[in-house]
Amino acid sequence: MSRYKAMIYITLKEGILDAEGETVRRALISLGFDVSEVKSGKMYIIEFKCDKDPEEVVEKMCRHLLANPVVNNYKYELEEL
Amino acid sequence: MSRYKAMIYITLKEGILDAEGETVRRALISLGFDVSEVKSGKMYIIEFKCDKDPEEVVEKMCRHLLANPVVNNYKYELEEL
Repeated sequence: MSRYKAMIYITLKEGILDAEGETVRRALISLGFDVSEVKSGKMYIIEFKCDKDPEEVVEKMCRHLLANPVVNNYKYELEEL
Repeated sequence: MSRYKAMIYITLKEGILDAEGETVRRALISLGFDVSEVKSGKMYIIEFKCDKDPEEVVEKMCRHLLANPVVNNYKYELEEL
């Protein structure tokens, strides 16, 4: 069994209202920054073991638990430990 | 004024209880994954304009609004648009 570390990034799909991003945008503007857009997202750094294709395992984690395919996009980076 | 895109990643410092990460770890284990550690974090993708050093601007955004220096680490990638 090999050990891996996955960095998983989850964002909202285009067209889905990003209330947090909009709140942060307004707050940054009120602090004097010239900000045109803010997108918010989540990130998970996961250490796991598996004996099959680690990409397949991470895809399953995303589809079954971490991301909602209706509203989220996800991407990830994998590293063998 | 130049336009930039910053990808900002905010995580909890070592030693700070990551309740969300621990919940995700247990959920992944209950789904049959062999997971030893999960760290959760936030991500912001910010488009902004500035006429000075963009790294300095992103540092200020992080310190003044996005990250809490007591409990968070942050890192970022910058790209000119």
